[in-house]
Amino acid sequence: MSNANERQAELQAQYDRYLEADLKLDLTRGKPSTEQLDLSNELDGILGGFYMLQDGTDVRNYGGILGIPEARKLGSEILECRPEQTMVGGNSSLNLMYTFIDHKLTEWGEGAKFLCPVPGYDRHFAICAHFDIEMLTVPMTDDGPDMAVIEEMVTADPNIKGIWCVPKYSNPTGHTYSKETVQAFAGLPRKAGPGFCIFWDNAYAVHDLEEPGDTLHSLMTEAEKAGTQDSVVMLASTSKVTFAGAGISFLATGENSLKGYEKFLSSQVIGFDKVNQLRHVRFLEDMDKVRAHMAKHRDLIKPKFDMVLNKLETALGGKDIATWTSPRGGYFISLDTKPGLATGIVELAANAGVKLTPAGATFPYGKDPENTNIRIAPTYPSLSELEKAMDVFVTCVELATLNAELG
Amino acid sequence: MSNANERQAELQAQYDRYLEADLKLDLTRGKPSTEQLDLSNELDGILGGFYMLQDGTDVRNYGGILGIPEARKLGSEILECRPEQTMVGGNSSLNLMYTFIDHKLTEWGEGAKFLCPVPGYDRHFAICAHFDIEMLTVPMTDDGPDMAVIEEMVTADPNIKGIWCVPKYSNPTGHTYSKETVQAFAGLPRKAGPGFCIFWDNAYAVHDLEEPGDTLHSLMTEAEKAGTQDSVVMLASTSKVTFAGAGISFLATGENSLKGYEKFLSSQVIGFDKVNQLRHVRFLEDMDKVRAHMAKHRDLIKPKFDMVLNKLETALGGKDIATWTSPRGGYFISLDTKPGLATGIVELAANAGVKLTPAGATFPYGKDPENTNIRIAPTYPSLSELEKAMDVFVTCVELATLNAELG
Repeated sequence: MSNANERQAELQAQYDRYLEADLKLDLTRGKPSTEQLDLSNELDGILGGFYMLQDGTDVRNYGGILGIPEARKLGSEILECRPEQTMVGGNSSLNLMYTFIDHKLTEWGEGAKFLCPVPGYDRHFAICAHFDIEMLTVPMTDDGPDMAVIEEMVTADPNIKGIWCVPKYSNPTGHTYSKETVQAFAGLPRKAGPGFCIFWDNAYAVHDLEEPGDTLHSLMTEAEKAGTQDSVVMLASTSKVTFAGAGISFLATGENSLKGYEKFLSSQVIGFDKVNQLRHVRFLEDMDKVRAHMAKHRDLIKPKFDMVLNKLETALGGKDIATWTSPRGGYFISLDTKPGLATGIVELAANAGVKLTPAGATFPYGKDPENTNIRIAPTYPSLSELEKAMDVFVTCVELATLNAELG
Repeated sequence: MSNANERQAELQAQYDRYLEADLKLDLTRGKPSTEQLDLSNELDGILGGFYMLQDGTDVRNYGGILGIPEARKLGSEILECRPEQTMVGGNSSLNLMYTFIDHKLTEWGEGAKFLCPVPGYDRHFAICAHFDIEMLTVPMTDDGPDMAVIEEMVTADPNIKGIWCVPKYSNPTGHTYSKETVQAFAGLPRKAGPGFCIFWDNAYAVHDLEEPGDTLHSLMTEAEKAGTQDSVVMLASTSKVTFAGAGISFLATGENSLKGYEKFLSSQVIGFDKVNQLRHVRFLEDMDKVRAHMAKHRDLIKPKFDMVLNKLETALGGKDIATWTSPRGGYFISLDTKPGLATGIVELAANAGVKLTPAGATFPYGKDPENTNIRIAPTYPSLSELEKAMDVFVTCVELATLNAELG
């Protein structure tokens, strides 16, 4: 028996022991842990009975689709733009993306297409699928999406009306777009067909795992220089800052564009929850306080990322079995297997009680052409659960690889 | 100079004095007053750091589009149906109506029409206008919309896909639909074309101005007997129970229908704000507590309704100038002038500093064919402001009527 065969048998035996252990572990979604949520518990009750704004607005009453001025200012600081370009929504930035696209559909007409840098975020792709918007993939580089490819595509096809970007600590690869990439994005709408929008989902704007974190150059600053600010749609939320399901969301775009979107929203909502906006402003105050708060998150989740990376390196390092990212922020580690193995590994892990994001989820239509990408979300489980889950996972990766090689 | 001419001169002199008084009063929208909002101030902080449900759900985290079980139960009690038929949304029931209609549009196809009992609620009509859904008016009777007319219309035209109803303390007339009307509604989808939906906006379900209030027969009970529960879409919210802009909303429909709607929502939202749902459940608890809470609202707003009705009776009673409703609940008093005068009266009042809902707003497309209907919203201003505003208003009504008669 060769070394490889011996190792295969060893891994199979280990895997069989996991099967018997009746594990129930979940690495699927980028959810904050209970301890992270606890960091914001004082949100409820923080108003102490004071519901009035400086401008006399009673946040308890109806009205004000764009949000309270104090929250628009906070959002503009997170997104690095001006308060006049920023609105504040409810608990879901996904909902702002969805309704913004819904609002543009009439203008775009039939046959609108979107560019999707891959791997990317499945819920972005689900919005396009919902609206029957054809998705075209674009490869990622270490500097962000391949801008040369993108410029060629939008020049050639005026029906390309949008692109999905997670510019900082990209979901799932963790890349932060370079200054040159951001500058190229600012000029992109001039090369594209009418109505083209850059969806700049800055979900991890303040989610650094290192100190200092990556610097993302301001797209809005560059877009204003290029006169393309109405083609920029920037998004953020406090979902992974305060409460995942009960935070506030931000959308920033050029002022003309914001007016059109506000008008669209006015037939479906009188206003978003201003009481919760005020709670968040009282709690987060300004960028200094946001950064101090995020440092507490970092203290909780950095050890989890470190352990996952350590497990990967120890078990798979130097074996030419898989490659993975070492993100400096965000919520994910992206791992690439040998071609064709991702689906099988996710299945193996599932059978042993470890749920992973379905293979392919990081690609449009759920189809990873090489079937290699697996997204690992380390934040939600406890450190000890995560350790067990990773032990199973690396066993599955190596076992599947050997099975494929040895037959 | 005739008596009428004398009176006209007297009213004109009075009106001129109002012009000089530089008033700024607002009777436009059904907004709760500050004192009403104060009744729910303990909402913020009510959780005391406890965010877990009995079933183990952490309300701070992501997920659960249909809402927390405790809130679904409360909503089902308000709407008189079963929790399995009830979902809980964010701060806007209007948004649930909008998205539900959006969700049905594909099924309905081109040329969908809606029936609109008039006078009605302008934001309902705005949703139809937004989606280019043609609106057909239906007259109201004291028992609710004229069901004979409605049955004839839906039988004749299968493109009629929906009807807007405010079945209890109707906006703006204050009527509550009779048991016979509710029963006729339960059978209506069997007479209508495929996909027909009854939008049953029970916005004033617990908003009694008298004790006991009107009884609205349960539509869902009747619909289940008739097998039409999937064609019933019932709505309510706590907007005028707790905080107008920061409450929770409810939608109830047949279980099959709810599944389809949940699927539609899943591409635009991960879940609504469950923390605020839990706050509301802790605060409102059950129907007994809801009723006790609404009694406090009644204590604050009943004197306002009484004063408006008193002013109308004193100034306009027995003069064959106008008719108005004396609602037993809800948020509005509906007044009808002599034909053709409503727009002019609203303008007269506006020039004297008293803002009213634009004439015509209670009709589709903002067009009141007789130009008679004016909606009065007494809840927001203080009693003394309301008194001043009503003095101006009744002067305008009588003056405009005499001006029309005398030329």
